[in-house]
Amino acid sequence: MEIAGVKFAALNCGIKQDKLDLMLAQFVVGTVCAGAFSTSYIVSPTIGWDKNLLKQQINPKALLVNSGNANSFTGQHGHEAITQTTKKLAAALNISQEEVLVSSTGVIGEKLPYDKIIAHYPGLISGLNAKNYAVAAEAIMTTDTAPKLRSVTTDISGQQVKITSFAKGAGMAAPNLATVLSYSFTDAVIGQDLLQQIFAEALEESFNAFTIDGDMSTNDTALIFATQQAGNKELHDINAIELENFKAALKKLLQQICDDIVLGGEGVSKLCKIYVSGAKSKKSAKNVAMAVANSPLVKTALHGSDPNWGRIVMAVGKAKEQLNLEKFSLDIGEFNVVKNGELNENYDESNSTGPYMQGELIEYFIDLGVTQEKQQALVTSCDLSRGYIEINADYRT
Amino acid sequence: MEIAGVKFAALNCGIKQDKLDLMLAQFVVGTVCAGAFSTSYIVSPTIGWDKNLLKQQINPKALLVNSGNANSFTGQHGHEAITQTTKKLAAALNISQEEVLVSSTGVIGEKLPYDKIIAHYPGLISGLNAKNYAVAAEAIMTTDTAPKLRSVTTDISGQQVKITSFAKGAGMAAPNLATVLSYSFTDAVIGQDLLQQIFAEALEESFNAFTIDGDMSTNDTALIFATQQAGNKELHDINAIELENFKAALKKLLQQICDDIVLGGEGVSKLCKIYVSGAKSKKSAKNVAMAVANSPLVKTALHGSDPNWGRIVMAVGKAKEQLNLEKFSLDIGEFNVVKNGELNENYDESNSTGPYMQGELIEYFIDLGVTQEKQQALVTSCDLSRGYIEINADYRT
Repeated sequence: MEIAGVKFAALNCGIKQDKLDLMLAQFVVGTVCAGAFSTSYIVSPTIGWDKNLLKQQINPKALLVNSGNANSFTGQHGHEAITQTTKKLAAALNISQEEVLVSSTGVIGEKLPYDKIIAHYPGLISGLNAKNYAVAAEAIMTTDTAPKLRSVTTDISGQQVKITSFAKGAGMAAPNLATVLSYSFTDAVIGQDLLQQIFAEALEESFNAFTIDGDMSTNDTALIFATQQAGNKELHDINAIELENFKAALKKLLQQICDDIVLGGEGVSKLCKIYVSGAKSKKSAKNVAMAVANSPLVKTALHGSDPNWGRIVMAVGKAKEQLNLEKFSLDIGEFNVVKNGELNENYDESNSTGPYMQGELIEYFIDLGVTQEKQQALVTSCDLSRGYIEINADYRT
Repeated sequence: MEIAGVKFAALNCGIKQDKLDLMLAQFVVGTVCAGAFSTSYIVSPTIGWDKNLLKQQINPKALLVNSGNANSFTGQHGHEAITQTTKKLAAALNISQEEVLVSSTGVIGEKLPYDKIIAHYPGLISGLNAKNYAVAAEAIMTTDTAPKLRSVTTDISGQQVKITSFAKGAGMAAPNLATVLSYSFTDAVIGQDLLQQIFAEALEESFNAFTIDGDMSTNDTALIFATQQAGNKELHDINAIELENFKAALKKLLQQICDDIVLGGEGVSKLCKIYVSGAKSKKSAKNVAMAVANSPLVKTALHGSDPNWGRIVMAVGKAKEQLNLEKFSLDIGEFNVVKNGELNENYDESNSTGPYMQGELIEYFIDLGVTQEKQQALVTSCDLSRGYIEINADYRT
């Protein structure tokens, strides 16, 4: 779990009533950082601050995250909050203001009471410890029912390296606009450019490939920090064979964290994996998978354990991606339903997909029939349940 | 209600157990037709048949619609069904096969039993009558709880003309993939090109501007027939002042039919109108309105009578359309919530939007602040309710 070169502290600074709401991570000199952010056109000023620092390829020395308030949609006050919190933290840690990354998650439209944050810097700094992952993961939660924290050991060129990730994801219980924050830490020796490439690839098949309700937050943030402490040989080519294990381990770790977020959402009873093959491109395949993942009719059928293949076909069609209907096929689990654009004549729902749909992990395999390419996209989704409506209709009232 | 030059008949031909499932409309010589169809990439062959005839600017003499079976996703059999039903109907009516338009709605993936349809032509033809709107509107229904049928009298150049429309829309109770069929009839003297332009404009602000669950059917069809019987002066310019009343009446009629479809959906408790101003273009405005209309978080908040303005802002942001946050505003009903990109300081939910949200018609007014343009888009939506989940999760099981 522990990563050499990173320490954490967490406490309650009074934004929330009594739960942990403030987290500080401190990094050893030379740490590099890569990341991705919400592509929404309305974002928190924290996104702009972090993006700008990443663009300058700074070596971060600190990451400050508060929960309970999104510091979003409060005009000039939001920028002022960032200026003040980073300036005072830099002074307290004797570092530069431009070495401090920030994130916020919580209610939007309310001014961030940044005096409360600044007042707790002494306690926060004195609590810094390399073992504090559990409280750090807890401090970034909003309505999450449990922290999402995972760790993996892998290697680069035979030298052991570790990766630890934690995340918060409101998901189904999405009162804070489904904000997803994810932080990963590795001791690998790796440059900023290569780290950014590897992280972007892993995100494309994890955090950018799962959807609970298709909504996007103003504050979504994913960051990875590499402390350069593992002693592995430094590589520069993303295609280097010595990097394969690390890339695969990071991708799988992030996929597991995403599954944790989806399954941890209140009201979720089923996880659904949508695989698309035979598309003209990976992008086309992903568009189709996302259209199926986000279709309310597909998601309610899933909730009802109904192998309603017509709804899946409908969702494929509305994605408006190239398909060859005469070669189009759909399998639900191990059962072929549609073959060459027609219902399989031997398809007998009651003895195949009917019982299968009662399970908790449901897999759809869609082949668009345009090319011979296999598994060009995998998107993770979940059912749309009565619980979702109850939680989200009644959240504030 | 009656339109000179159109007769209807409807009966049960045995596709459904005992309800009306077959409708025939017969048109006087010289009738012209315009239309729009599903833009999904997987469509029923009926869509291709009708599109091709409209492209040829045929004068239709008959429209045949069955419910209970979508004639979709059955390969070659679907084409054969159209060839046979249109050929035999043409022979029975002594017209050409290329003067017969067709639609189907119902279960997809099951072969259309077209022998049953053909066997009932004698009864259907002998029942043709100018007054038969009610049964015609009923025969195209699937799970609709009531027919949607409306009529209006207007004028072109001072000469009275009539328009009658009926539609089916599964909507919330969308087991047939939310298929929407809509047929309009007018006695106006009007050419095919102009009719197509006027109809397209009216659809853009009615059938193309409402959304229940964001899904799209394989069979969506909207057709309008003009019988040329009203005796009005024929016009050729869509901007002619003498056409204003007709254009406005048609648009309003179609908007009312859309509201009927939305409100008639099982599980719907609230109608929501989303107005967007200040966008860089009409298209941009509509994208924003549709993003808000389709957001599950906005729709569940609506269901819970929750004036959760943060979710509306989030949905605006994810549309990724140009906006000027410093001039951005949001009003819910008559109450200003966000002004110049910040929460209105005088906003007091408990005395304004709180009680307002308890109503059945909820209006959101969004100004993107990019231009001074007013009401560039209006999209109609509804709440996402427990009822929706129940109906759609349990439909087939």
